Amino acid sequence: MISDGMEKLIALARLPGASLPDSARQIARFSLFDWMVVGCAGRDQPVARIIREYVAAEGGNGVASLIGGGMAPARGAALVNGTASHALDYDDTHFGHVGHPSVAIMPAALAVAEEIDASAAAVVDAFLLGAEASVRLGMTLGRGHYERGFHQTATAGAFGATVAVARLLDLGEAETRNALSLVATRASGLKSQFGTMGKPFNAGIAASNGVEAANLAKRGFISCDDGIGGPQGFIATHADAPDPHAPWTDLPNRFLFEDVKYKFHACCHGTHAMIEALRSVAIDGKSVKAVHLRVNPRWLKVCDIKAPRTGLEVKFSYAWLAAMVLAGADTAADRTYGDALAADPNLAALAARVTVAGDASLSDTATALELVTTDGRSIRVAHDLAAPLPTEAIARGLRAKADALLGGEEAGRLWALVAAIGRHSAREIGAALRGS
Amino acid sequence: MISDGMEKLIALARLPGASLPDSARQIARFSLFDWMVVGCAGRDQPVARIIREYVAAEGGNGVASLIGGGMAPARGAALVNGTASHALDYDDTHFGHVGHPSVAIMPAALAVAEEIDASAAAVVDAFLLGAEASVRLGMTLGRGHYERGFHQTATAGAFGATVAVARLLDLGEAETRNALSLVATRASGLKSQFGTMGKPFNAGIAASNGVEAANLAKRGFISCDDGIGGPQGFIATHADAPDPHAPWTDLPNRFLFEDVKYKFHACCHGTHAMIEALRSVAIDGKSVKAVHLRVNPRWLKVCDIKAPRTGLEVKFSYAWLAAMVLAGADTAADRTYGDALAADPNLAALAARVTVAGDASLSDTATALELVTTDGRSIRVAHDLAAPLPTEAIARGLRAKADALLGGEEAGRLWALVAAIGRHSAREIGAALRGS
Repeated sequence: MISDGMEKLIALARLPGASLPDSARQIARFSLFDWMVVGCAGRDQPVARIIREYVAAEGGNGVASLIGGGMAPARGAALVNGTASHALDYDDTHFGHVGHPSVAIMPAALAVAEEIDASAAAVVDAFLLGAEASVRLGMTLGRGHYERGFHQTATAGAFGATVAVARLLDLGEAETRNALSLVATRASGLKSQFGTMGKPFNAGIAASNGVEAANLAKRGFISCDDGIGGPQGFIATHADAPDPHAPWTDLPNRFLFEDVKYKFHACCHGTHAMIEALRSVAIDGKSVKAVHLRVNPRWLKVCDIKAPRTGLEVKFSYAWLAAMVLAGADTAADRTYGDALAADPNLAALAARVTVAGDASLSDTATALELVTTDGRSIRVAHDLAAPLPTEAIARGLRAKADALLGGEEAGRLWALVAAIGRHSAREIGAALRGS
Repeated sequence: MISDGMEKLIALARLPGASLPDSARQIARFSLFDWMVVGCAGRDQPVARIIREYVAAEGGNGVASLIGGGMAPARGAALVNGTASHALDYDDTHFGHVGHPSVAIMPAALAVAEEIDASAAAVVDAFLLGAEASVRLGMTLGRGHYERGFHQTATAGAFGATVAVARLLDLGEAETRNALSLVATRASGLKSQFGTMGKPFNAGIAASNGVEAANLAKRGFISCDDGIGGPQGFIATHADAPDPHAPWTDLPNRFLFEDVKYKFHACCHGTHAMIEALRSVAIDGKSVKAVHLRVNPRWLKVCDIKAPRTGLEVKFSYAWLAAMVLAGADTAADRTYGDALAADPNLAALAARVTVAGDASLSDTATALELVTTDGRSIRVAHDLAAPLPTEAIARGLRAKADALLGGEEAGRLWALVAAIGRHSAREIGAALRGS
């Protein structure tokens, strides 16, 4: 039942810590590290600067850290840090949720944890519960919500952020209900912002809305009984075809959040399976006569730009990215994607050998390709991002990405912090994000 | 054309002051006075206290006044003052807009005007343009938007607040476009909050969103080209049957805002035509045998509670309110509506003589009634709120309402302030709202 969602979210926020599986906590710690890395890497992006300077100009009690420097009230810090960490669009993705869990929820959890001086481990647990809430609600809202034009990262994310903060503030059942019903009137975010500063800002508003709603509920704010599944609630107003069978029933035994995927390349997630497949062949571009890709047809509208004109457009170009892999370029470093890349004649020559076809039999996390060599061999290879990676492979990939984005020294400091999370406070996490 | 809306809103924000009709400015001044009155009357409501205390706890640069006391950053002040002024639900209504213009827009205009030390007259002009924007956009979103569950006061209101602040900050055309496209991803508000603290909060979020969006645009925030009427913009995502013929074409020659209606009774607006009709007869309850009301059928689901149990329910009871008029009760003072009212045997006896019938030939601003006297006479009378009131009648009504809500001394001070608006600054308006 749809209206069951509210009860499940309340139960999630109040789940005993002992019920959290170690495997899910491990992934949540990976997400914390990856979120810190992409946040620090995005700190000087124009949109991050604009929001940080606006919040700094408001002033206020500096209880929570701003990525890139400074302190602010928790609501403002969540707005800044959500925006900064999504600025590069390099953060984690949950394909079932149709959204980015960390950038909406981690900033809310961290800001409030700093304010109340909670432990870093409490941030991880609150994030995990909030992320699970956003994934489940995102699935309930369904693909129709996304297709209509809503950005699940922001909409479902606001409810997840509320769950995370409710957890940290130890709200009672009635308070948690009020917080979730209240955020239903605040949650927003449109896909028409994609390609603009509005996309990362959407993550910031989700985080900020969660901080606000849970704090107001703690102060006695009364909202309606079920602002999510009730009459004219969030689902009725925002989802044309909600999934009444969204899998709430296996909670808390299974955390779907564990299916989250990390980006190891600084380009559109729809191209990553192709990149991994090509890398697995380990062939030099000079020996390649043709590359024939097959992908789920939905990606053809997203990341099949044939002749990119800018570095940003390269991030959405199968042909160019395939050429980069064949040429040995570092696809993990954001700085690789300068505008000169689109004018590189060597890459253009390699890209001209790539064809892309839609294949509805492939899921949207999979790519199959045939590589034809100059000496006439045909090599067939496929990759599906949905296949779970071994923990060690995730750790290796995240660490390499961090090195590429931040350099080894800063990456190492952040890694050490998260590796010893049990010994640290939320405020130490915040200090690392401030760069102090 | 729907996508024309963005251009019209930009043009409104940048309209030369000389184009503003005196008649519209006069109504806007009435709205400022009425807004200050209902805001001050609502300052101690629980929801107003909760939001004020939350914003005060955040601290920050105190550039804008809080109704009831204190200063805060403009974004926070707008949140507090929007909420406080809608707490009693006694503020102005625009039936075409399907919303309350002042509570969403005045707080945004005032907070920013205080911050930049603008004149009180500049607040009135910015409000007027913002209110007109919200009315036009509310009409474009149409009744379908409202019926789906969205609260135009909050949704269309956020765009109006953005127009008002863009005006005060003197944004250029491109900046104004970015501000409006940005607020499209922030604008929210659900009717499922009605009857809870969430309803007045919706006005606060509209005002706060407007302050934020216009300020961020001024700082260089880039959003999409048309977040309102463009693909997956606010209209496409939030309105099932937008009105493509919404009357944008007569701008700036006609200000539909002038049709705004003030509440002169502290009860549901759907009962006001009945109250005015009954008052026009000026008959003592002892001489009344029966009152037969006819109203638009939509009101039967809203304000026809037959046996109210609380003072709040009396506000939605034709029978009880008719009894109050016949008994000479002060329907203007909010304090009249205590819970004891619902248990008054004299009112119960009078209410028992009232019948209510739906009549689809009546507009939703009209009531027709037949009054049968104990000596057998039949008196027929009707009232339509849509009929324009003479300026003097509005002034008299607003002043009497202010006296009933705040007492003559405070009401007189606010009246004098608005009467001499050309001599005052926005900060003087703010000081009056703080109670200092």
